[in-house]
Amino acid sequence: MSFEADHRIGKNAVQLALLGPDSDQAEYFKQLKELGFTFCQGKSGAMETHKVVAAIETAAKRNGVISSSGYRETHALYHAIMEALYGVTRGQVQLGTVLRTVGLSFAVVRGKPYEDEAEGEWLAVALYGTIGAPVKGLEHEATGLGINHI
Amino acid sequence: MSFEADHRIGKNAVQLALLGPDSDQAEYFKQLKELGFTFCQGKSGAMETHKVVAAIETAAKRNGVISSSGYRETHALYHAIMEALYGVTRGQVQLGTVLRTVGLSFAVVRGKPYEDEAEGEWLAVALYGTIGAPVKGLEHEATGLGINHI
Amino acid sequence: MSFEADHRIGKNAVQLALLGPDSDQAEYFKQLKELGFTFCQGKSGAMETHKVVAAIETAAKRNGVISSSGYRETHALYHAIMEALYGVTRGQVQLGTVLRTVGLSFAVVRGKPYEDEAEGEWLAVALYGTIGAPVKGLEHEATGLGINHI
Amino acid sequence: MSFEADHRIGKNAVQLALLGPDSDQAEYFKQLKELGFTFCQGKSGAMETHKVVAAIETAAKRNGVISSSGYRETHALYHAIMEALYGVTRGQVQLGTVLRTVGLSFAVVRGKPYEDEAEGEWLAVALYGTIGAPVKGLEHEATGLGINHI
Amino acid sequence: MSFEADHRIGKNAVQLALLGPDSDQAEYFKQLKELGFTFCQGKSGAMETHKVVAAIETAAKRNGVISSSGYRETHALYHAIMEALYGVTRGQVQLGTVLRTVGLSFAVVRGKPYEDEAEGEWLAVALYGTIGAPVKGLEHEATGLGINHI
Amino acid sequence: MSFEADHRIGKNAVQLALLGPDSDQAEYFKQLKELGFTFCQGKSGAMETHKVVAAIETAAKRNGVISSSGYRETHALYHAIMEALYGVTRGQVQLGTVLRTVGLSFAVVRGKPYEDEAEGEWLAVALYGTIGAPVKGLEHEATGLGINHI
Repeated sequence: MSFEADHRIGKNAVQLALLGPDSDQAEYFKQLKELGFTFCQGKSGAMETHKVVAAIETAAKRNGVISSSGYRETHALYHAIMEALYGVTRGQVQLGTVLRTVGLSFAVVRGKPYEDEAEGEWLAVALYGTIGAPVKGLEHEATGLGINHI
Repeated sequence: MSFEADHRIGKNAVQLALLGPDSDQAEYFKQLKELGFTFCQGKSGAMETHKVVAAIETAAKRNGVISSSGYRETHALYHAIMEALYGVTRGQVQLGTVLRTVGLSFAVVRGKPYEDEAEGEWLAVALYGTIGAPVKGLEHEATGLGINHI
Repeated sequence: MSFEADHRIGKNAVQLALLGPDSDQAEYFKQLKELGFTFCQGKSGAMETHKVVAAIETAAKRNGVISSSGYRETHALYHAIMEALYGVTRGQVQLGTVLRTVGLSFAVVRGKPYEDEAEGEWLAVALYGTIGAPVKGLEHEATGLGINHI
Repeated sequence: MSFEADHRIGKNAVQLALLGPDSDQAEYFKQLKELGFTFCQGKSGAMETHKVVAAIETAAKRNGVISSSGYRETHALYHAIMEALYGVTRGQVQLGTVLRTVGLSFAVVRGKPYEDEAEGEWLAVALYGTIGAPVKGLEHEATGLGINHI
Repeated sequence: MSFEADHRIGKNAVQLALLGPDSDQAEYFKQLKELGFTFCQGKSGAMETHKVVAAIETAAKRNGVISSSGYRETHALYHAIMEALYGVTRGQVQLGTVLRTVGLSFAVVRGKPYEDEAEGEWLAVALYGTIGAPVKGLEHEATGLGINHI
Repeated sequence: MSFEADHRIGKNAVQLALLGPDSDQAEYFKQLKELGFTFCQGKSGAMETHKVVAAIETAAKRNGVISSSGYRETHALYHAIMEALYGVTRGQVQLGTVLRTVGLSFAVVRGKPYEDEAEGEWLAVALYGTIGAPVKGLEHEATGLGINHI
C-alpha cells in the first residue's frame, strides 16, 4: 500500500505523524514541498499537557513552519494543537492530573489546501502515539488532528 | 511512500479510514487478515451524531467485526466510537445542533495488538473526513481514533 | 443490611433513587420527615435530556418540594438536575443525539443537612437507572447526584 | 460613567452587545469607525444553538463584516461564535436539549487590535442577554466573548 | 457613550470588570449602592486557576460582599466563579496546564435584580482581561459571567 | 429500610460506597459473594485527581478484584474510575486545580450482572463522599458510578 502526497493538508499531517520523525521518506517529503507545503515532525513524551504544547510550538518555530515573532501565527498554532489534543485525550485535556502519560509523534504542516487561492494558508497539527498509565506497556494508541487558518 | 500492516491496531484503523471504503488495497487487506485482524470500512455523511454512531454500529455488525447479538461487544464499540468522535468534534460531540455537518469515512478493526496473548482482543474505530458548515466546500478535515478492549 | 435516614441529604436522595418510586418504605419516609426533609420520587424514561429535566421539575413542583412560582427555587433545582445528569451521562450531557436512552428513577430531597442553622436549606437531586442503546437490554446502570443551596 | 472606544476589540464587542442593536450611539460608532473597526449588531432568541450561530453568521455577512464568499472568514467567525457560546452556556453548548432558551444581543467587530501592523486583522464576537427556562422571567443574564485572527 | 447602573446585576458586574479596580467611577458606584447592590473589584494574574478562584473569594469576603463564615455563601460564590471561568477558558477550565496564563480584572456584585421581592438576593461574578501564552503580548481578551442565587 | 444484594452490579457498588469501608455488613457481604461478586472498599481524600485514581487502582489490585499484571483489566478499571469521577466533579474532572478537595469512600465490584452468561464479567466503580473548599465543613456530598465490561 502506498500513499502519495496530495492537497489534503490534514491527511498529510496524519501520515507524517504516523511515520514519525525518524522515518526517511525523501520521496514523500519532496512531493509535499512541490505541493507548496512546509512541515516539521517531532516527538514528545510527557505527563504534562503543557510540555506537549511547548514541544510542538518550539519545533514549528525552529523549523520555520510558523513565525517565531508576533502573536498571530502562534495563536493559530495553539488552537490547532489544542484541537489535536482533544482527539488524543478524548474528554478532558488532561494527562498526569488524571494519572496518564503520552508518547506522541507530531507533525505540523502549513500550506494551501484549497483550490481557491483566496482561501490562503492553513495549518494542520497531527498527533499519533500512545496514551496510558505511567507504566511501560499499559497504554494504547491515540491520535488527533487540529486544523486552522493562518 | 508505502505503509505496511503491523500489530498496531490503531494505526491500521487510521490508515483504513484515510484510504476510504472505495480504495482497493488487496495486498494491505491480505496483510491485515494474516495478522489476525478483522475489519470493515464505510462512509457516513450526517448532521446528526447519532446517525454516524448507527452507521458504524451497523457496518461492524453486518461485517461480523462485532457480534450482532448481546450487549458486551456493542458496549465496547459504542465507547470506541464516542472516543473517535471526540477527535472529530474537538470539544462538544455535536454536529447539526451547532450548525455543522460531517462527511466521514470510517474503519473498525478488531484483533490482538499486544504481544502478550493474555491482553486479548481489542477494537479500534477510526474516522477521517471533513467537518464544516452545511455548505459544500466550507469545511476542513478531521480525524479521530477510539480504542477499547473487547 | 439496613439503612437509616440521617442528616446527609445526598445520601438520602441516592437511597430514594435506588429504592425507586414504587417501593413502600413507610418507616424510612417517616424518619426523613422527622428529620425535616421534604422529598419526592418519580421515574423518567427518555431519549431527550430535556424530558428528564422537565419530569423532575414537574414532580418537585407538584409535590411542593420547590415553589411552583418564581425563579429562585427553579434555578436551584435546575442546576442540581444538571449536575446529577453529569453523573449519568459521564462526559456529554446528551442522550438520543448520541444514540442512547435512559430509564431513570429520581428523587428530590430538600432540607437542612448542616448542624449550623445558618447554612439554611439545601436541595439534592439523585438519579439511578439504566443508560444504553435504544434496544431493551443493551444498557447498564448509571447514577448521579446534584446538590445546591436553595 | 462613560466608555470610549479604544483599540481593545473584545471590550468594544462586549460594550456593543451590552448596548444592544436598538441603541443609538452615533458618537461611539463614529469612534469605532475612526479606529478602523467594522462591526454589526443583532438579536437572536432561540432554543436551538444552531439558530444563534446562523443569526450571527448571516448578520456578519450581510453587513460586510466578513466575506460572504469562501470558507476562510466563515471558519474564523464560526470558532469565535462557538467560543462566545461557551461563556453563555457554561459547560455544555446546549440550549433546548437541556430545556433552556436564550434571548441574546450580539455584536461582531473586526479590526486591528494590536499596535504591530503585522498582527493583522482579528474578529471579536460578543453575546449578552438572558438564559433560562422556556418561561418568561425564569432566566438570568449571560455573556460570552470569542476572539480569533482573520 | 455613557452607561448607567440599573437592576441588571450581570450587566453591572461586566461593566465593573471592564472598568477594572483602578478606575474611579464615583457616580456609577453611588448609583449601584442606591440600587441596593454591594460589590467589590480586584485583579488576578495567574497561570493557576485555583489562584484566580482564591483571589476572588478573598476579595468578596474581605469586602463583605459574601459572609466570611459558613459554607452557604461560599458555595454560591464558587459556582458563580466557575461559570465565569467557562467564559474565559472556553472549553477546558485550565490555564498553565495547557500552557496559558490570564491577567484578569474581576467584579463581584450582590443584590436583588428581580422586581419580585421573593426572588431575593443574587450574585454576579464578571471577569475581563487577557488570556494567552506566558509571554507578554501573546494574548487576547477574554470575558466571563457567572450568576447564582445566594 | 433494608437493602439486599441482587444482580445489579452498579447498585451494589453504590451501596458499598454509601456504607464506607469501616462498616461491618457481614450478611450483605456474604450475599454479594454468593451472587458471584468480588469487591473491595476503601477511602481516598485528596486535592489531586490522580491520587484518587491511584488509590482505587491499588485497592482493586491488592484485593484481587482486577489482575495486577497486564493492561487489559487496568484499562477497564481506569475508564470506570474516570466515569465515576465525572459524577463527582460534574463538569471538569479537576480538584485542587480549581481549588476544591474530596473525601471519598469507594467501592469496586466485579461480576456478572446479566442473565445471559455470554455477557461475561463487568466492573462497577462507585464513589461517595464530600467535595468542597479545602476548609473542613465547606463541602457537600457527591457521588459517581462508572461501569465497564472486563
